Amino acid sequence: MSCRTIKGFGTYAVNEPLKEISIPRRALRETDVELEVLYCGICHSDLHQIHNDFGHTMWPVVPGHEIIGRISAVGNQVNKFKVGDLAAIGCIVDSCGSCEYCYHDTQQFCENGTTFSFNTPDRYMNGEQTYGGFSQSYVCDENYVLCVPPFEDLAAVAPLLCAGITVYSPIKHWKIGADKHVGILGIGGLGHIAVKIAKALGAEVTVFTTSKSKLDDAKRLGADHVVLTTDENQVKEWTKKLDFILDTISAKHDVNPYLNLLTWQGALVVVGLPPEPLDVSAFNIVHGRRSLAGSNIGGIAETQEMLNFCFKHNITADIELIKSDQINEAFLRLEKNDVKYRFVVDMHST
Amino acid sequence: MSCRTIKGFGTYAVNEPLKEISIPRRALRETDVELEVLYCGICHSDLHQIHNDFGHTMWPVVPGHEIIGRISAVGNQVNKFKVGDLAAIGCIVDSCGSCEYCYHDTQQFCENGTTFSFNTPDRYMNGEQTYGGFSQSYVCDENYVLCVPPFEDLAAVAPLLCAGITVYSPIKHWKIGADKHVGILGIGGLGHIAVKIAKALGAEVTVFTTSKSKLDDAKRLGADHVVLTTDENQVKEWTKKLDFILDTISAKHDVNPYLNLLTWQGALVVVGLPPEPLDVSAFNIVHGRRSLAGSNIGGIAETQEMLNFCFKHNITADIELIKSDQINEAFLRLEKNDVKYRFVVDMHST
Repeated sequence: MSCRTIKGFGTYAVNEPLKEISIPRRALRETDVELEVLYCGICHSDLHQIHNDFGHTMWPVVPGHEIIGRISAVGNQVNKFKVGDLAAIGCIVDSCGSCEYCYHDTQQFCENGTTFSFNTPDRYMNGEQTYGGFSQSYVCDENYVLCVPPFEDLAAVAPLLCAGITVYSPIKHWKIGADKHVGILGIGGLGHIAVKIAKALGAEVTVFTTSKSKLDDAKRLGADHVVLTTDENQVKEWTKKLDFILDTISAKHDVNPYLNLLTWQGALVVVGLPPEPLDVSAFNIVHGRRSLAGSNIGGIAETQEMLNFCFKHNITADIELIKSDQINEAFLRLEKNDVKYRFVVDMHST
Repeated sequence: MSCRTIKGFGTYAVNEPLKEISIPRRALRETDVELEVLYCGICHSDLHQIHNDFGHTMWPVVPGHEIIGRISAVGNQVNKFKVGDLAAIGCIVDSCGSCEYCYHDTQQFCENGTTFSFNTPDRYMNGEQTYGGFSQSYVCDENYVLCVPPFEDLAAVAPLLCAGITVYSPIKHWKIGADKHVGILGIGGLGHIAVKIAKALGAEVTVFTTSKSKLDDAKRLGADHVVLTTDENQVKEWTKKLDFILDTISAKHDVNPYLNLLTWQGALVVVGLPPEPLDVSAFNIVHGRRSLAGSNIGGIAETQEMLNFCFKHNITADIELIKSDQINEAFLRLEKNDVKYRFVVDMHST
């Protein structure tokens, strides 16, 4: 398959900083569009991949999957976009389109293998891996590209493509609305958007954080209550009071004290990916028919729905906009949770 | 409060065998009935209590909560029963009747404390503990007593009062029917009734057991497929094929291989109470929006519904009927899982 070479920020090995490297982009298929990358968010899973935490990183790796851009070329059969349109690409750039999961618009679970925006074999490049959004441009089938409503601050939209859909999908699936009391565990990239979305849906929101420094900020973001989890008694005050808990914590932690905050038939839904197993006492789920569930990003249609919802409710991420030569510094700060609440790289500064 | 003294089988300390002891039964309140105990099943949780495994056994303890009997006296205001009627008592003998949980007919979660058939303070006996069904008679408010349809083998109905409702409630809650493929983990007192109920609802049923000796028996009970879990490859063949898994295992076990057998949005529901925490890999629930949930017996109305359902579908437990002087031997055999599938004590043999 023909392709061309572009510039991206990637690395050839664990513990090596990202640098400008040359990567291939496939030539446009009939239903492909090319996106000039304007902004790309930095997500914790980018960090996992460049550290090879999941053990399946393919080198060189160019991360980045919260991509906002402008259509710069379209294939012959493209209907949805024209050159000059704003567009976005999230985690999913291809799937089989014919399995049960694709049929249900949950391409993230595709039976025949979801193609993610980086570090996955590309069906149309003889299996060469995909390279992410920290690059000049991206080529993708139009069906996996999102339309971007006319937000004022485009850079702050980028994190919605992964962090946004990751929290939106379970909040919608568990039918969060005005009659629900929602707990949000962790107030980082995911948690801070979850607060905004849950509030926009009318829920009562209680944030649980280990950081004293984030107490006021959680309120500013819209939380009705904030609990400092280092104080066990403060946590216990919410026993059986929450209908739903969104657990955005990526590090090892004990879910049992939080399961006990759930009312009858409540669910604690994990969207982070702590590498160690979560210990669950059977008593804490058997009592009250509670559940510990998981949720993984969201399908293409739901991602579009989320973007439209966020536009309608004026929701974007709180970001620190950086230049491309600050990527490595940003990754180091992200590792220390030193960001409020998402880094976004201005790829124009390349 | 006035009371009278009856005979029961109980013990005053851990590791002491059960023997005939004298216990109090309260005088009939206006809405109480007295039940002459005919049969009482032996459940694993009776064993937990006489071993004080949960650390809150009150001595002396008289276990037994799968009680079939005949009404021998009724209070002035009793409407539902008359002397001579067959009746049954399960795990729940009282609750506040006014909290949210009682309102939803889930008295097992009563906000103000469910009174269980033994080892719980009795509101009407100045807080003296309740004594269970291994006794001559039981006194209980009629609202917590079940009507028994005219089953042929009454002794085999007793285990439905705990084992039956424990599996029926989640099977109904998770809407198991003809379009569902159900896995049953463990084929003991709970599992063998779960197979019968799931089959009666039209589901496809796959049993997972560690016991070679139970493979044929699972088929006889109605299972469509049986998997020997000591063979990892056999287990993996069911990956993503089950909609729902009922986990009836009370001992420590790894749920992760089973979570992976769930299809999209499937639930693994724990009804056993392993004392050690269950380790859950976040990946196994995040992928496919799966959940690990729990379920605890069922409310009074649902227990009645279950009895009626079982009568209609000719479902009872497979039991070994024993005499009261065999109780201790039966507990020893239960401890070794040496029972197919439930001991029931003929209390007439007292």
